[in-house]
Amino acid sequence: MTTSAEPRRSPPDLHSEYAAAAAHARRTAVLASVESLLGWDEQTMLPPAGGAYRADQAAAVASLVHASRTEPEQRDRLERLAASMEGGKGDWSDEERVTVLRLLSDLHKQLRLPARLVEEIARACIDGQQAWVEARRHSDWKGFAPHLDRLVRLKREQATCQSPDLDPYDALLDDYEPGARSSDVSALFDRLRPGIVALVRACRGSSCPPRDDLLRQHFPRAAQESFVRMVAENIGFDFARGRIDTAEHPFCSTAGPHDCRLTTRWDESYLPTALFGVLHEAGHGLYEQGLRSDAFGLPGGEAASLGVHESQSRLWENLVGRSLPFWEWCLPEARRMFPAVLSDASPEAIQRSLLVVRPSLIRVEADEVTYNLHIMLRFDLERALIRGELAVADLPAAWDDRFEQDFGIRPATAAEGVLQDIHWSAGLIGYFPTYTLGNVYSAQMMAAVETDLPDLPAEITAGRFGPLLDWLRVRVHEHGRLIDPGPLVSGATGRPVSERWLVESLWARYGPAHGLGTSPPS
Amino acid sequence: MTTSAEPRRSPPDLHSEYAAAAAHARRTAVLASVESLLGWDEQTMLPPAGGAYRADQAAAVASLVHASRTEPEQRDRLERLAASMEGGKGDWSDEERVTVLRLLSDLHKQLRLPARLVEEIARACIDGQQAWVEARRHSDWKGFAPHLDRLVRLKREQATCQSPDLDPYDALLDDYEPGARSSDVSALFDRLRPGIVALVRACRGSSCPPRDDLLRQHFPRAAQESFVRMVAENIGFDFARGRIDTAEHPFCSTAGPHDCRLTTRWDESYLPTALFGVLHEAGHGLYEQGLRSDAFGLPGGEAASLGVHESQSRLWENLVGRSLPFWEWCLPEARRMFPAVLSDASPEAIQRSLLVVRPSLIRVEADEVTYNLHIMLRFDLERALIRGELAVADLPAAWDDRFEQDFGIRPATAAEGVLQDIHWSAGLIGYFPTYTLGNVYSAQMMAAVETDLPDLPAEITAGRFGPLLDWLRVRVHEHGRLIDPGPLVSGATGRPVSERWLVESLWARYGPAHGLGTSPPS
Repeated sequence: MTTSAEPRRSPPDLHSEYAAAAAHARRTAVLASVESLLGWDEQTMLPPAGGAYRADQAAAVASLVHASRTEPEQRDRLERLAASMEGGKGDWSDEERVTVLRLLSDLHKQLRLPARLVEEIARACIDGQQAWVEARRHSDWKGFAPHLDRLVRLKREQATCQSPDLDPYDALLDDYEPGARSSDVSALFDRLRPGIVALVRACRGSSCPPRDDLLRQHFPRAAQESFVRMVAENIGFDFARGRIDTAEHPFCSTAGPHDCRLTTRWDESYLPTALFGVLHEAGHGLYEQGLRSDAFGLPGGEAASLGVHESQSRLWENLVGRSLPFWEWCLPEARRMFPAVLSDASPEAIQRSLLVVRPSLIRVEADEVTYNLHIMLRFDLERALIRGELAVADLPAAWDDRFEQDFGIRPATAAEGVLQDIHWSAGLIGYFPTYTLGNVYSAQMMAAVETDLPDLPAEITAGRFGPLLDWLRVRVHEHGRLIDPGPLVSGATGRPVSERWLVESLWARYGPAHGLGTSPPS
Repeated sequence: MTTSAEPRRSPPDLHSEYAAAAAHARRTAVLASVESLLGWDEQTMLPPAGGAYRADQAAAVASLVHASRTEPEQRDRLERLAASMEGGKGDWSDEERVTVLRLLSDLHKQLRLPARLVEEIARACIDGQQAWVEARRHSDWKGFAPHLDRLVRLKREQATCQSPDLDPYDALLDDYEPGARSSDVSALFDRLRPGIVALVRACRGSSCPPRDDLLRQHFPRAAQESFVRMVAENIGFDFARGRIDTAEHPFCSTAGPHDCRLTTRWDESYLPTALFGVLHEAGHGLYEQGLRSDAFGLPGGEAASLGVHESQSRLWENLVGRSLPFWEWCLPEARRMFPAVLSDASPEAIQRSLLVVRPSLIRVEADEVTYNLHIMLRFDLERALIRGELAVADLPAAWDDRFEQDFGIRPATAAEGVLQDIHWSAGLIGYFPTYTLGNVYSAQMMAAVETDLPDLPAEITAGRFGPLLDWLRVRVHEHGRLIDPGPLVSGATGRPVSERWLVESLWARYGPAHGLGTSPPS
């Protein structure tokens, strides 16, 4: 036994270390939100000649964000904190534990990428997008192929550096859908596919398919603006904390905990362009506004994944916006705003006209049913590219063959086929499956909502969206990314993630509209 | 004599040092332009609840800008360059010499301020503005006085640190009007004053003063938007490099070399609010768009001073916008856009209705003639405050006495008097005189233009503003701040700076409109 007159040095104060780590993450988020505002402004406000300087501004802020994200002091802090938590040690809440692990894993992912590779990927993405714009314009596959080849090689290298323990495609997928594995996604898609293929085939064979002439009339822009704003406000989008503007390629962007910005485009000869654009983006926006503002910049205040994000946009766009109760509620207002064209329309007629199924070449114009076939095609092809099972040179033929098999039509040009999407040219590989995962999650959530809230149709008919939004807030939004998307969706719905609800939902809505039953013929 | 086999070490390559210094200044400008965009967005786009987080974003970027501006490496570089230029040494162009001296003097000014003082002033300005908003709302001078007292003390300290060789007020003035000295400004204002006082008195005694009923009718907002945009475009504002939006307190903001943003407000019952707001801000915008974009972020591409900036806005607002040729040109278009109210109006009637003189309590609502008396009052009082010749406690009485003497009316409340402007509460002391300097410069420039371009009235009547804009571009804009404002104006006009042209211009336009002569009675 030893005694000492000297005061014992107290152990490092871990709780103030935690506070410092959280403060650092919040500071990084301040800069990242400025980067996000620059992007929003570029697509909505920037004068045409301002593009080149905007690129300089964005690059300067991006590099400050990157420096802040990878700061060595923050890494040391998080590593000490993680060590203090190992095996359940220490006086830490669950949220604190998950926060430290998420922040540390994000940081390690960044640090495992050599600076040389980060720069090379950034350059390849800029070059790739420029080449893609030109290549698509001229339907010139050969002009784009070398860029895609380089990008596939670099993304494969990124995957190996970033998550050496994972299959390379899974490493990329994990960036967008944490915890998802492509074998599970692939199995899910394989189970989903027959039900959708059967529905598409049945719809195409229908002798009385719905028509959308009602929506293809003149809807003046000013009235559309008032109408979609009214809709967004009523479903719960808070304009004290957000706004709507115009952009060529609609998106939702967050520039702060109380600053969420939707965009849409307008087509005076087709109402759904703006309306469903806004319902979709407002679905994203409701999620962003439902995240905990006190945890902005921390995992507790961040979206769980792209798939979960998409589930929110699709739920409001497709499962609410294409429903009869929704039109029972909003048609009187729509009639007032578009008296020349909607005065004789019934909710039933409008709703039916929103359920057209029409196989088409372009994903972003696809209907709700065929959309998922577009995604599955891309998922299979990009996974084969990353795994080295498909050469870039063979991609166009693989695309066209698969497309013909799935849709019964063959793209006449590369622009209508393999060159149509920007994603690959921007290095976004592993991103596509999150769209269909979002559809799967949204249908599963809506099925659970229908059990939990049996009065929902009547509530919606009365314009009361609060019960639905509250359900989503409590079950999904308020968890941030403290839970992985799979467990989050299972927890919210009380069931393992399954394609079953999406197939059921599509058949139940599109079947009757086409004079079919509500489920696939067995 | 010694010889050596060793290669001689070459002297530091000063020209690449110069390139590095310029690159550093440009990088700082990239961040400063992001700060500027955050400010623009705050006043035009930000959702109501977004204010607090925007303050965090702005503070984060401001501190990065400050760090970049005061970087020790840049100081060392500039000091080596300045030393290499001393006494006309070295192979340097005039622009390079001035650039180095300006950048170094800016940097030294910043570095001479102790960090403690910078922070204290920043805090005092934030507190001061908040207190001012409340104090003005309740006309509560006592609630604001301690803040002003603190600000005057801090600004005096700033002046002494920043430019120890200058009179403290001159040190502050120099921030806004480089090279200007308050003794010269004071002498100029003393010469200007009698001509304006005589004109105000004569106008008030007129038996047939102009009336502005014609402009106080219903002008629909949408038509106003088209009209002012058409005007801005025609006078030369380039919408490929800029835009117009709405703000409660109009301003012009630059977010990049090709990104200049005007704002205005709208009053459907008074056309001049938006029209002259846009002419004023477009005057600033034409100056910004006329600066050399290749030198953005360097003295060669920056505005010469606030006074010169204001000369451009006032020239377009008052000397063009209130002229008969301007209305001969734009009235047909105005009639088309506002048929219900302007179909019988003549250019002469409109122009006359724009020349009302009406002494009033509030500076920002003042007419072109009495405006300068508002400025002279503030200049004398703020100078006395900084010099310690007037105590903050005695300011309201001094304000009211002087106001009564100059305008023949006495403010009934502090809100209508000493509390009306935001400037002092935001630490902007030494700023006010630049408004009247701008008026003086603008009249002197216009007098020179009239000599140089005798056909200008006919050109303007025909809607050709190019010759006037070209004159301003070549004589003023393209010099950036490579020349101090006094020499710049003298050089542009071929005459020393004088109040004479402003007095002549005001009498020549306002005299006849009031049934008076074109010059003061002798």
